[in-house]
Amino acid sequence: MNMQLFDTIIAPATPPGKGALAVIRLSGPDTFSSARQCITPQTSWNNLKANRQVLADFYGPDQKLVDRVMVVKFIQPHSFTGEDSLEIYCHGGPFVVQTILDRFLDLGVRLAMPGEFTRRAFMNGKIDLLQAEAIHDLIEAKTKNSLQLSLDQYQGRLSHSLSELTAELREYAALLELELDFSEEDLEFVNREQLLQKMDKIIAPVSSLLDSFEHGKLVNTGINVAIIGKPNVGKSSLLNALLNEDRALVTDLAGTTRDSIRESLDIEGQLYNLIDTAGIRRTKDRLELLGLKKTDQAIDKADLILAVFDQSQPLDTDDRLNLEKISGLTKRVLVVLNKSDQPAQLSADDFDFQSVSVSATQLDGLEDLKKSMITAFQMDYDQSYMILINKPRHRDSLKRTMNHLNHARESLVNQLSAEFIAIDIRAALDAIGELTGHISRDDILNDIFSHYCIGK
Amino acid sequence: MNMQLFDTIIAPATPPGKGALAVIRLSGPDTFSSARQCITPQTSWNNLKANRQVLADFYGPDQKLVDRVMVVKFIQPHSFTGEDSLEIYCHGGPFVVQTILDRFLDLGVRLAMPGEFTRRAFMNGKIDLLQAEAIHDLIEAKTKNSLQLSLDQYQGRLSHSLSELTAELREYAALLELELDFSEEDLEFVNREQLLQKMDKIIAPVSSLLDSFEHGKLVNTGINVAIIGKPNVGKSSLLNALLNEDRALVTDLAGTTRDSIRESLDIEGQLYNLIDTAGIRRTKDRLELLGLKKTDQAIDKADLILAVFDQSQPLDTDDRLNLEKISGLTKRVLVVLNKSDQPAQLSADDFDFQSVSVSATQLDGLEDLKKSMITAFQMDYDQSYMILINKPRHRDSLKRTMNHLNHARESLVNQLSAEFIAIDIRAALDAIGELTGHISRDDILNDIFSHYCIGK
Repeated sequence: MNMQLFDTIIAPATPPGKGALAVIRLSGPDTFSSARQCITPQTSWNNLKANRQVLADFYGPDQKLVDRVMVVKFIQPHSFTGEDSLEIYCHGGPFVVQTILDRFLDLGVRLAMPGEFTRRAFMNGKIDLLQAEAIHDLIEAKTKNSLQLSLDQYQGRLSHSLSELTAELREYAALLELELDFSEEDLEFVNREQLLQKMDKIIAPVSSLLDSFEHGKLVNTGINVAIIGKPNVGKSSLLNALLNEDRALVTDLAGTTRDSIRESLDIEGQLYNLIDTAGIRRTKDRLELLGLKKTDQAIDKADLILAVFDQSQPLDTDDRLNLEKISGLTKRVLVVLNKSDQPAQLSADDFDFQSVSVSATQLDGLEDLKKSMITAFQMDYDQSYMILINKPRHRDSLKRTMNHLNHARESLVNQLSAEFIAIDIRAALDAIGELTGHISRDDILNDIFSHYCIGK
Repeated sequence: MNMQLFDTIIAPATPPGKGALAVIRLSGPDTFSSARQCITPQTSWNNLKANRQVLADFYGPDQKLVDRVMVVKFIQPHSFTGEDSLEIYCHGGPFVVQTILDRFLDLGVRLAMPGEFTRRAFMNGKIDLLQAEAIHDLIEAKTKNSLQLSLDQYQGRLSHSLSELTAELREYAALLELELDFSEEDLEFVNREQLLQKMDKIIAPVSSLLDSFEHGKLVNTGINVAIIGKPNVGKSSLLNALLNEDRALVTDLAGTTRDSIRESLDIEGQLYNLIDTAGIRRTKDRLELLGLKKTDQAIDKADLILAVFDQSQPLDTDDRLNLEKISGLTKRVLVVLNKSDQPAQLSADDFDFQSVSVSATQLDGLEDLKKSMITAFQMDYDQSYMILINKPRHRDSLKRTMNHLNHARESLVNQLSAEFIAIDIRAALDAIGELTGHISRDDILNDIFSHYCIGK
């Protein structure tokens, strides 16, 4: 991708609010000519070397000092965006930041759109589309596993693996197309038997990448866990017990939010989104029925069900209703036998599911429960160290890739002419090209970058 | 003040939350030895020059990548704190920031206390106490005037002016003390007549600095404006009319807050804090009486009263109650004749106060009102360009300075011996020393820096 010419943009790169410092970033061809009109570096502009952080005075239109700042200039293509860029480190006051922004807007610099800096880095070939997405994921990461996954993608592991696959395919496509040019001479540049073997060797990794979506999505956005059971069985106590132990891990982080029904839990680096539900029992009460509908929705959304029973009581009709519900599911289910601090009337043998015994109020057995929650998914991303995809967009592209590869393979098996095989291999290459962004479509780009914050 | 030895501290320098970047700052003797254990700059540590921004990999304890960052090292004394320092520019995700902080905490670096970086800059003689305070004000500044005032103080205008005054005083104190050493010989190193003249020349600027407090405080924290009047006279409409016109100026800034009764307005660079009050009228209703108590408190706090009357109606008993109230005040009062869009039954002549005619609903006359609000205080900080103090602490130190100077002057006039004069001049110097921080007391420092945020 060649260097493209854009206008000059500006945005704060740090979150809004007060802090010791704020960072304001400019990028584009007029970066330095604009900056010369309001910034006087201690070293003078002519002596200011790239990547060197120096003290500078920032002046308003009336030549009055606005702030004493630090600046670093980056000369194209050696910058994040690939363009001439400037970073200003000013005092972290909202009015200071606003005054500096306004000054540049007056000088004809434009406020950046969400994600525009990263988009330019992509357009200028500094990073591919998967890496651009990974920057977003990195910032959104809430646990060690999701950070690790984002970093892998940011470092280009997925891109590299895809480019290895495409290199071979591209070669075959070229050879097949060459055959077409010599079609009258009936030449075969590609041995069909070898190609079939190669195709299988390419289809296998694409297929496992496609299969990695479920795992990648869970690593990226967390495992949704619905806690169900009849009323008063200790669902909320269990939720609180799980959260109280690890709450600090997730909520000490500024910027993480929690809403009423969804609480985040970090178990050994994996994010779990816990959803407390209304108790399931036979009822004709309209309001309660409405609550049960919400419970069903939570179950639908869940990747894992924690079905809670009170082990100090024998199973009653409401418990059986809950058992019926989980028996009908194709999801992972863990039975939680609560109130282990009281004499037991139920045991693991009463259930066809894996079960864990806990006392939510005595904080007993929680480590066992967490271990079971981990092993239910084998979420140790760290050890497996496989390459994962984590977005519907990735899956869709890879599905199309698979379809075309399978189609090409079929044509090959049916001994169709090179033309048919080549068309599908090209289409598969295009689908992968969209995934990495080597073929870029505006609607895909808009969709991706519009989710970024301004300044990214 | 000499370089002191501290431990090594770390804190995020940018506000919490998500952004493209976050800045993490380290300072202290172990900065580089700690950083070497988790950061690998692209250039290697040995080739990393000071003030040069380079790409680097940040590693966790398991030698797994945590983030790809930029780092700048600052070698003492050429840093903000005067110590060895490192700035890390990482991706602006809360989990990334937390992971980097945790890594350094594990390596024995301590999380900084609020204001500790600035405090070290002060302790290491990089800035004086007035400049340290100004950094805080700079970040808190909400308008052009308050920013300008902070910048003046940050650049050392007040410090410079005080150091000029103290230089002369110090000389006289030394000469007077010399006389004491030769007291048996009855020598006079200081001509008393000249000293008296000099004292007057020093007392005058200290006195006007002291007088500047009211102005400085208003520039710094804004002019409190209470809007009063009988019920339904249009107080809230007036508040909204004033705010709607300029709301964007203040509230588009992230980090500014507004509560129910206090709204901020920026008129030509000066901050006004508008306080809407409960209508004043004769009543026996207990709840309403409670409201009136609050109105009285707002009037007490106010620097300016906007007394609103409905000019389409003749004055009634409730209006007269309001007139009584403002007549008893020693504060600045502006009468606002509202509802100018209707036939007038009142005019400026009916009031002993300056008045402005407006229609809050038609947004008419608001510019006149604002002009009157400005001229009521002559808040054009820009043109006057005088040196201002803006904190009770400044005023208290200068009051003590004044007392001692006056005392010294009195001793001089009464021809007391050098000893008496010298003691008071020294005490005046000490009071100024506390103001600039050349004499530093822990309680004063704790009080100042504890108001800073962490990372500052």
